[in-house]
Amino acid sequence: MGIATNAEANGLRGLFPALANKTYFNYGGQGPLPTPSLEAITRSWRTIQELGPFTNAVWPFIEQETARVRSALAALCGIGPHRISLTENVTSGCVLPLWGLPWEAGDELLISDCEHPGVVAACHELARREGLSLSTLPVLELCQSTPQAQLETAVLEQLERQLNPQTRLVVLSHLLWNTGSVMPIAAVAERLKQHSKQPWLLVDAAQSMGSLPVEEAARAADIYAFTGHKWCCGPEGLGGVALSERLLEQAQPTLIGWRSLRNESAAGSSWHRDGRRFEVATSCVPLMSGLSTSLELLAAEGDAASRLETIRQRSEQLWQGLQRNRAIRTLLPEAPPAGLVSYVLNGQNSAAVVERLGQAGLWIRRLDAPDCLRACTHITTTAAEIEALLAAL
Amino acid sequence: MGIATNAEANGLRGLFPALANKTYFNYGGQGPLPTPSLEAITRSWRTIQELGPFTNAVWPFIEQETARVRSALAALCGIGPHRISLTENVTSGCVLPLWGLPWEAGDELLISDCEHPGVVAACHELARREGLSLSTLPVLELCQSTPQAQLETAVLEQLERQLNPQTRLVVLSHLLWNTGSVMPIAAVAERLKQHSKQPWLLVDAAQSMGSLPVEEAARAADIYAFTGHKWCCGPEGLGGVALSERLLEQAQPTLIGWRSLRNESAAGSSWHRDGRRFEVATSCVPLMSGLSTSLELLAAEGDAASRLETIRQRSEQLWQGLQRNRAIRTLLPEAPPAGLVSYVLNGQNSAAVVERLGQAGLWIRRLDAPDCLRACTHITTTAAEIEALLAAL
Repeated sequence: MGIATNAEANGLRGLFPALANKTYFNYGGQGPLPTPSLEAITRSWRTIQELGPFTNAVWPFIEQETARVRSALAALCGIGPHRISLTENVTSGCVLPLWGLPWEAGDELLISDCEHPGVVAACHELARREGLSLSTLPVLELCQSTPQAQLETAVLEQLERQLNPQTRLVVLSHLLWNTGSVMPIAAVAERLKQHSKQPWLLVDAAQSMGSLPVEEAARAADIYAFTGHKWCCGPEGLGGVALSERLLEQAQPTLIGWRSLRNESAAGSSWHRDGRRFEVATSCVPLMSGLSTSLELLAAEGDAASRLETIRQRSEQLWQGLQRNRAIRTLLPEAPPAGLVSYVLNGQNSAAVVERLGQAGLWIRRLDAPDCLRACTHITTTAAEIEALLAAL
Repeated sequence: MGIATNAEANGLRGLFPALANKTYFNYGGQGPLPTPSLEAITRSWRTIQELGPFTNAVWPFIEQETARVRSALAALCGIGPHRISLTENVTSGCVLPLWGLPWEAGDELLISDCEHPGVVAACHELARREGLSLSTLPVLELCQSTPQAQLETAVLEQLERQLNPQTRLVVLSHLLWNTGSVMPIAAVAERLKQHSKQPWLLVDAAQSMGSLPVEEAARAADIYAFTGHKWCCGPEGLGGVALSERLLEQAQPTLIGWRSLRNESAAGSSWHRDGRRFEVATSCVPLMSGLSTSLELLAAEGDAASRLETIRQRSEQLWQGLQRNRAIRTLLPEAPPAGLVSYVLNGQNSAAVVERLGQAGLWIRRLDAPDCLRACTHITTTAAEIEALLAAL
């Protein structure tokens, strides 16, 4: 499979202008946009101008493009399209449904210590307003000491220690943005079902969508929020969230506009029963055309499992190479389960390293917590790029 | 002035593909996108791919494009850029700051009877959650019976009747989307300052931004929320809100992401003190490049006051023509103060009229409350288009 995949990946790779003039390892920050997707975006705008922009003639096209991307995202999540809300970004996907849940003062939010500052800050503000308490699910240390095969058991044990009768929500990323570990989302969801309060499970899928098979986790979570502009290589400004049936029943919308309303002309109308209840108002339809195209290009390279296999071969090559450098400590004790490779370069300022590599056209990023460097490998990453990074370090 | 403006408008008009193949009167639904703006969007994406998409090399470009559109919008509002939040649409601009205000149970929201269903529904949901009460500021009847010159006095009298000691917020559009009347925002704000509770003033500026001079109203309101994709002829998916200094001090963000945080790496960081506290996470930077270009194209045609003069000439031509048709009743008793012309075609189903005209390539829209037809005139509207509409009716 290696050779065929390489060939295909090289064909795909040629479609990305961003990869033509640099050695790129920041897929987890933002994925490059393929030329066919930018063309689809531009074409979509031209069609909207030709038929509309606000005419009865343009609505079928807008409905078609909206339904097309919603269906594609739903298929990746293994759920019906009615359970998808389209959002501007992953944060909106996390927070919009969160604010609408029926909180009771004293409810506790259990948040992993590897979550993105945005969603953590939103949880803190929610707790302040609704009189909720906060506690931490420590997984960072576990990830750095436990092989992935034993991580499920270790995370479940940790969860057991932190759950209490007030726990009403657990926040846990599917693929941790700092260590690159995969969290056992389905097993966590299963455990939460046994809890008397039936806590909701909010999963930040910023790093998993487009890099891992996500069906099992997306089906298990109540809120599985992702973006199109990282591993899916879509345009910035469009993401979504997969919602559980119970969440669609229990949560009220917060930001409310014509797209949330069953009858958009009537303020007193009820909300849409499906994922549209968390959509707000006008957003950019051409971005939907672009993301659909990016998803089709990725799908043409193989299913999510086979693409993950390619991603893992690349990240393993990088991880193994890093082991040979005595000044480097990888965060994970073994090759990563996906495409995120984080490491510490002893005695060097990580921001200065990013800047120095950047000047050589080689782009990785640094993270704050823990202070480390992170390089991502996607199916477009080549063995030569990895060797270039290893040489530059 | 007429001839020069016509010539300029015709030059501008040639830049809009949407206007080439139809007779378009739905600027208040969505404005057409000029070709230079679509080119600016595409070029912005190319630049982001060339420099980034996620590299130290691309951040200056992203900051430049963000600052450029923020400054242009702030200049239109006559305020400092720190008082502008960029949002996805006008609804987000209305609702994001609204949810963060320090409500107390029993506070009353006074909402005009000409507001868009989206913002009304959001106010109802806010009232349900926070234990607020709702009341109505009736202006629809006034608008249909009172000349614009006497409307300020009439609206202020109506406001006087509806204000009570619990009033904590007034919601009023600047340019009413149904009747097309201009509301006396600055005078309303002045009156609210005399009220013991100092009610906040939320202004839906969906129809005013890009069609009227807005400085006075934007400076007077606490929340002045607009979109780029209607009268400003920018791309769909980008708008903003002008916020008062007191609102920036009093309101907490609701949707929270890395853009709201002073230190984006630290969840415990404080919020930005400026308008960024209501911005959330990744949005589409190329849309900012497109909106900046559209605003520059409009500015090249004259300042907001002179453009309004052109818009009014057109809407007056249409309004006068409608008076000659006995089957038609215009909503306003005199020529409109801006570019919205609403009317009722007696004895005809308004949706069927829209459909019939659309089949002849002539696009107006219908509204539900009151049930009427609406045609908008912009500086790109020609006298011949207006005659075509009058003939088709």
